[in-house]
Amino acid sequence: MVTLDKIVQFAKSTGFIYQGSELYGGLANTWDYGPLGSLLKKNVKDAWIQKFQRETEYNVLVDTSILLNTEVWKASGHLGGFSDPLTECKACNQRYRADQLIESFDSNVNADGWSTDQMYDYILEHKVKCPNCGAHDFLPIRKFNMMFETHQGVVKEQADQIYLRPETAQGIFINFKNIQRTTRKKVPFGICQVGKSFRNEITPGNFVFRTREFEQMEMEFFVKPGTELEWFSYWKAFCMDWLLQLGLSAKHLTFDDHKPEALSHYSNATTDIKFEFPWGSDELWGIASRTNFDLNAHQVASSQNLEYLDPETNEKYLPFVIEPSVGVERLILAFLIDAYDEETLESGDIRQVLRLHPKLAPYKVAILPLVKKLHAEKAKEIHKLLSKYFDVVYDETQNIGKRYRRQDAIGTYLCVTVDHDTESLESVTVRNRDTMAQERIQISDLRNYIEEKINY
Amino acid sequence: MVTLDKIVQFAKSTGFIYQGSELYGGLANTWDYGPLGSLLKKNVKDAWIQKFQRETEYNVLVDTSILLNTEVWKASGHLGGFSDPLTECKACNQRYRADQLIESFDSNVNADGWSTDQMYDYILEHKVKCPNCGAHDFLPIRKFNMMFETHQGVVKEQADQIYLRPETAQGIFINFKNIQRTTRKKVPFGICQVGKSFRNEITPGNFVFRTREFEQMEMEFFVKPGTELEWFSYWKAFCMDWLLQLGLSAKHLTFDDHKPEALSHYSNATTDIKFEFPWGSDELWGIASRTNFDLNAHQVASSQNLEYLDPETNEKYLPFVIEPSVGVERLILAFLIDAYDEETLESGDIRQVLRLHPKLAPYKVAILPLVKKLHAEKAKEIHKLLSKYFDVVYDETQNIGKRYRRQDAIGTYLCVTVDHDTESLESVTVRNRDTMAQERIQISDLRNYIEEKINY
Repeated sequence: MVTLDKIVQFAKSTGFIYQGSELYGGLANTWDYGPLGSLLKKNVKDAWIQKFQRETEYNVLVDTSILLNTEVWKASGHLGGFSDPLTECKACNQRYRADQLIESFDSNVNADGWSTDQMYDYILEHKVKCPNCGAHDFLPIRKFNMMFETHQGVVKEQADQIYLRPETAQGIFINFKNIQRTTRKKVPFGICQVGKSFRNEITPGNFVFRTREFEQMEMEFFVKPGTELEWFSYWKAFCMDWLLQLGLSAKHLTFDDHKPEALSHYSNATTDIKFEFPWGSDELWGIASRTNFDLNAHQVASSQNLEYLDPETNEKYLPFVIEPSVGVERLILAFLIDAYDEETLESGDIRQVLRLHPKLAPYKVAILPLVKKLHAEKAKEIHKLLSKYFDVVYDETQNIGKRYRRQDAIGTYLCVTVDHDTESLESVTVRNRDTMAQERIQISDLRNYIEEKINY
Repeated sequence: MVTLDKIVQFAKSTGFIYQGSELYGGLANTWDYGPLGSLLKKNVKDAWIQKFQRETEYNVLVDTSILLNTEVWKASGHLGGFSDPLTECKACNQRYRADQLIESFDSNVNADGWSTDQMYDYILEHKVKCPNCGAHDFLPIRKFNMMFETHQGVVKEQADQIYLRPETAQGIFINFKNIQRTTRKKVPFGICQVGKSFRNEITPGNFVFRTREFEQMEMEFFVKPGTELEWFSYWKAFCMDWLLQLGLSAKHLTFDDHKPEALSHYSNATTDIKFEFPWGSDELWGIASRTNFDLNAHQVASSQNLEYLDPETNEKYLPFVIEPSVGVERLILAFLIDAYDEETLESGDIRQVLRLHPKLAPYKVAILPLVKKLHAEKAKEIHKLLSKYFDVVYDETQNIGKRYRRQDAIGTYLCVTVDHDTESLESVTVRNRDTMAQERIQISDLRNYIEEKINY
């Protein structure tokens, strides 16, 4: 498997991902998506919306705001409970998440669910050392809330203090009634959302895997109580199928079903889809059966009835919820890792090729005039024709072999070469990224040919 | 023209736009986009990217972070200068933007560019009254910076204080070198970005026209100095054409060219495209020739050379910039206002119809089984077939006339009705939203038929 360093270098040099604010020495843990990365990101989001919303008969889309009334976070439990256990080395002032400090000290220990006292006792008893300076003298653990605070309005009064959302899910829950009423959807149905969230993580890192600003794709799927475990299985399989369909390797993916004793108090089933990252297996996608915990919390806190009236049975109930929640950036990292390849050709040359699924490839097609002076005009015509339907790129510099390699390296799926016969035959050569095979295609058939090849 | 109240009511009842955090009494000036609004928003952004980036030979896309190094805002001038003149009525504590207070007191006055002293003198001299309580006793004017503050990292030290970006443009400027290097683009070329920005406005309002959280579509187009006014004209016409192509009424659109004396010090040409909103003509799109002001500011502040080396002439220079900048939400409002129609039919009935351009319509097609019991199965088959390519909606409740009306009201462009002849003839009826004309179409031709109709 490719190393993380190599992917970071590759992403930067090709224009997938740059360090954020790099011109000013960066801003810790922020990343900017360049010309290729922004298209890849857009393609990942579009692919998710296509399969999770557009092509299902169940689901609708919403786009709710990042700034919410603080009552929402009181009700959801984020204001009280959305915190990490923070400690600090007295000698070097390095800060740590206590659970991670313990687990990296002894990888056999799982500190999930420990109280702060338990953690601090463990650190004292086992004389856990600071990984930075080697001292073993830590400040007592305190709860650190991960929500970013800000103020809306002109004066910094307590009432104006608000938070950047740490998840998109609550924007869905608080609109459940509005959406059900206006769409007249019957349970089971789901609400999908793609958008930015913010978490002030103590220990972000691993490139774009854990960032303080990130983008989520979340669905809340509302079902009749009693049917939730069936639907949990349905969406669990659906998520895995989607990853496989888009080209992640089955041998890098596993389900980590949470054991009953490790479930959150409101969940009766939870699983993580884990991916084999360069630093080890780590969480890609969380899928949870959350009962009616969230709707009930908002019903109580808002004193409004959020029950659903079943039009067939006339029963009233709070629907149960299945929530698959995935981060766009860590998905992108997984796709890049599995797509990156260095292939040894028969000639002994190394070919760098990014084997992204065509749906995800930033450019579907590169348009290449064989000889710039002779073929550029026709090539630009074809660029114009195809850019109406696909992301295409035009390249006229250096010899054709180098241009093929350049496109291979950034994942461009097809290369269309305009050559000496194009004018008379009204045809072009089309080369496939993966097989390197070439075909002669009529210009009038090009659009359909490409569409079939990248069908998703 | 439709009133703003009517549009607000319409948007809420149909599921285009709900009040943000409504369940908890709202959060001032935030809005959530429901199943229809989120699709409309996505369509507007896709249409912009298609014409401003994908189909041009010049432009690339980026997606940079909301959180930036504070040095960026020092260099750009936002930290020092991005402020509104704030005053407050001593009697009722209502706060105002002083320039707006003066201009609403006397609509013949234009307070653009006045100093705070000038404004306060005017308020005292003319005994400007508080529009809320009628008193004329205002606090001295102070500059109020509109950037939202927050803290990144664990401890609230001065160094950790950062801002939510008030515009997407600076994320482009600070990546100019990275992007030029990795794409090897030659000037002229442009960089496009779509993303959220935040401005702590003193007086937001008019529904989604001015909101503190909003989404921008910005392009920075880099040109050779001396050619900027030509390119300014090019993009000015391009923006207007785009609006007209997507169906805004020419009679509601005007250019407001800034007079030389009203230009910002760094601009040698600026225009606003204004739209006739229900409250009057107001800014939709700002297009500015900004010289090399931004690149130069970052070159000086970062001590890095941001010059472009022209490969043909070997000249080195800082490119000049043309910046068209538009807000997604106010565009959506303009589209809704111009699309909303109540038509009196021959029968005397009123038909509510939302005449959105098919590219923008949330649903391209509604699939309607004429009789649920007989035709639902086939209709669902067609839904499955078409949802691979288009946003489609399925509706089986109430009589067909009512279903047509319901789809008309939310802008669905075509209605596909599955009826008694569908099974034997393999064909359906397709009804057009605008003409209400019906055609019989073979199911196998349906995809191409729809694609041609919604071609953009």
